[in-house]
Amino acid sequence: MIPPSAAALAALKHALGPGGWTEDAAEIGPSLTEWRGRWSGATPLMLLPRSTDEVARAVRACADHRIPIVTQGGGTGLVGGQIPFGEVLLSTRRLRAIRVVSPLDDALTVEAGVTLLEAQQAAAAIDRRFPLGLASEGTATIGGAVSSNAGGTGVVRYGMMRDLVLGLEAVLPNGEVFHGLKRLRKDNTGYDLKQLLIGAEGTLGVVTAATLKLHPALRSRATAVVGIDTPEAAVELLARAKAETGGGVEAFELMKRIGLELVLKHIPDTREPLDSTPPWCVLVELGAGQPGAAEAALEALLADAFERGLITDAAIAQNEAQRAAFWKVREEQSAGQKPEGPGWKHDVSVPVSRIAHFLEEATAAVLRFEPGARVSAFGHVGDGNIHYDVMRPPHADPAAFMARQPEGSRIVHDIVARYDGSISAEHGLGRLKTDEARRYKSPAEVAAVQAIRAALDPNRIMNPAVLF
Amino acid sequence: MIPPSAAALAALKHALGPGGWTEDAAEIGPSLTEWRGRWSGATPLMLLPRSTDEVARAVRACADHRIPIVTQGGGTGLVGGQIPFGEVLLSTRRLRAIRVVSPLDDALTVEAGVTLLEAQQAAAAIDRRFPLGLASEGTATIGGAVSSNAGGTGVVRYGMMRDLVLGLEAVLPNGEVFHGLKRLRKDNTGYDLKQLLIGAEGTLGVVTAATLKLHPALRSRATAVVGIDTPEAAVELLARAKAETGGGVEAFELMKRIGLELVLKHIPDTREPLDSTPPWCVLVELGAGQPGAAEAALEALLADAFERGLITDAAIAQNEAQRAAFWKVREEQSAGQKPEGPGWKHDVSVPVSRIAHFLEEATAAVLRFEPGARVSAFGHVGDGNIHYDVMRPPHADPAAFMARQPEGSRIVHDIVARYDGSISAEHGLGRLKTDEARRYKSPAEVAAVQAIRAALDPNRIMNPAVLF
Repeated sequence: MIPPSAAALAALKHALGPGGWTEDAAEIGPSLTEWRGRWSGATPLMLLPRSTDEVARAVRACADHRIPIVTQGGGTGLVGGQIPFGEVLLSTRRLRAIRVVSPLDDALTVEAGVTLLEAQQAAAAIDRRFPLGLASEGTATIGGAVSSNAGGTGVVRYGMMRDLVLGLEAVLPNGEVFHGLKRLRKDNTGYDLKQLLIGAEGTLGVVTAATLKLHPALRSRATAVVGIDTPEAAVELLARAKAETGGGVEAFELMKRIGLELVLKHIPDTREPLDSTPPWCVLVELGAGQPGAAEAALEALLADAFERGLITDAAIAQNEAQRAAFWKVREEQSAGQKPEGPGWKHDVSVPVSRIAHFLEEATAAVLRFEPGARVSAFGHVGDGNIHYDVMRPPHADPAAFMARQPEGSRIVHDIVARYDGSISAEHGLGRLKTDEARRYKSPAEVAAVQAIRAALDPNRIMNPAVLF
Repeated sequence: MIPPSAAALAALKHALGPGGWTEDAAEIGPSLTEWRGRWSGATPLMLLPRSTDEVARAVRACADHRIPIVTQGGGTGLVGGQIPFGEVLLSTRRLRAIRVVSPLDDALTVEAGVTLLEAQQAAAAIDRRFPLGLASEGTATIGGAVSSNAGGTGVVRYGMMRDLVLGLEAVLPNGEVFHGLKRLRKDNTGYDLKQLLIGAEGTLGVVTAATLKLHPALRSRATAVVGIDTPEAAVELLARAKAETGGGVEAFELMKRIGLELVLKHIPDTREPLDSTPPWCVLVELGAGQPGAAEAALEALLADAFERGLITDAAIAQNEAQRAAFWKVREEQSAGQKPEGPGWKHDVSVPVSRIAHFLEEATAAVLRFEPGARVSAFGHVGDGNIHYDVMRPPHADPAAFMARQPEGSRIVHDIVARYDGSISAEHGLGRLKTDEARRYKSPAEVAAVQAIRAALDPNRIMNPAVLF
């Protein structure tokens, strides 16, 4: 990348005016790293636009002077897509308005810098639900969630961010504004540009606002942890849960025994959810529109599952504290691994019907390659999305182990590809996985993506280092 | 359009081989008109590929020789997007395989020429539901429904075709195959090409197969027709229905008195659903995963609505025959108008919260422009999608009335635009509405769409007369 010239930067500053940008290293610093410390970037200038119009002026100046830009929301991305390495950094942190709250449309229009949690709260205030939740929801922003097509635990019922956006406003790479903030459920008037922007990781423009699709508030919710012998049983239980509730499965999260043990060992205030210690367990959450319905459905589901021998143990949360405790062991799965040293992390998906085969085959292959490695696997069974993590053998040297990651991950990803899966189910490609993804995409698809990108951003100024 | 040369056509025939095409006017004829007789096209050649590979060979030959192509599925489109006017016609009618049926993935992979009804039946056979239904579902194909992003009555709960496609296989304009038939719920590895192909009306390639998302089978369903005084009351009732059922509203269809009367007058075997004759009525259908739950929810909803004065009358279907009778008066709304002569038809959407305002304002404006005109309005309240039809004043000359349509429709569409609506909610643009749509799109959006199209189809061979 050619660094922008002083004249180009001056023009950009001028376009935004005083207060619209900063060069203060102390102010910029926290935006140049990500929480796991994997990346530490650099930028000549951080832009802090206060309105869509200011974003448009900034992008137009960048287009005129061919200044590359990285856009950053809450900075919680896991693949480095939000970290500049010489590009100008555009922060959406000042785009904070909740523009429209519309209960009859089941819609909420917010600016890009609003957090997921704030969007959830704005929906709850009108007795509706914005169902996309992440561990980082207090920091992650709507703009980032749109640009990365965020997932989370509610995908099994409500879909990804892609399924929750009715309309978008974005500044395109030429600085023009796409005014697509419609509150419509149906609009068949040409290509759906918003769908192209969703998940584009900032390469096709800067998302400045979104109209979100809201769902009815839950009137009941019931949560259990169940013990199972095999992932096959989890898949079968999921199918029964969906059928018996008419799709009312709010979450269905698999955890392997080793992941649970590391949470109990390393994370304070956690406890064993079951009396037994089954090889796998599942956190099941059902929701319903009628009071009491979720509880009744969960009891019926679990009674039937016991009878069929699908589950070996179960604990139903009796109150909110117990529910929170169940969720805590799930949400701390990554944190629980951390004290064990670095690992090979994989955010993969396969068809739900193939989860069990994938887990078996991948683990056998990994252990052949790295005898003694410890495999943890957890995640969203309903989406086929497994966070498949390989930790070093207990006495192995961490650095030597990590040096073998590229080869080890290749083994895992090749198996994923054989099962028609995805090597990045929810985290995106960013700086981390673009090269790896190229290996598994057909040349026809990569060429189509590149042609679209070049058509909309001929000088490749938007997040140039990510995607194809 | 420059007609393809004899040499070009010969090369195309050669690419497909004997049996892969026809020039027989009798065989081609039925594919050149649409059911309402609005278009009557022409083609030098109809291609009848039997496989994705044959489609690829055909498209590649067309790309090499710059032969324009129109792709046709069941031919039920309402905007002329499937009718060739000199282009070669590619029929998907021989792409008929049901490739994969996968209950644990809630997924079904079918080729483009499979009908919606056949897809529904294949899902039902594994106790799942493919919830996209249209009046034309016995003829309309999956390929057409994908390319036009079909809607229908189930959108309020399940979304458009866009929301029901997990994966696509398509031949791109250069003849290369996009192998995107994934059965994944999560795959964040770059732009979502399938979302671009959905609703592209055949301009970005030929859809050859799709993997469809299935939903749980309903265990109960309850249907009523209710009388209401105003569209506002319908919107309010919908909000209550969604809230009280946790989103279990399968259909919510508004009908105006005049539309009902015309059905009763002109369509045999129809009868008044209610004892009273309210100015508007709504067909409400609830569904649930538990036996009996939908019936109970419907009774509770209607009792509450009576108490609040939202509805003035109600009839609950007591059996399948009565349910079919209720649906018949809804589905025959268009047919009921036909004997009254031609009309100005509008397939528009506005935000749900603005339906009542739109109806009031549009009807006042139409009557100022055409005093005595009769306005029927019916459709999918949950999607803000109103089929807004204007019939001539009883003694007006049909031809003179139709000559005033462009101006009259402009009035309606301008009001739709002021309410941030869409002038083509579910039918698409095709040959009919592309020019009109251009009026309401921003130049930035049209330019972006054109740039994407030119990038993927530089010689504009795919359905060249439709879209921007």
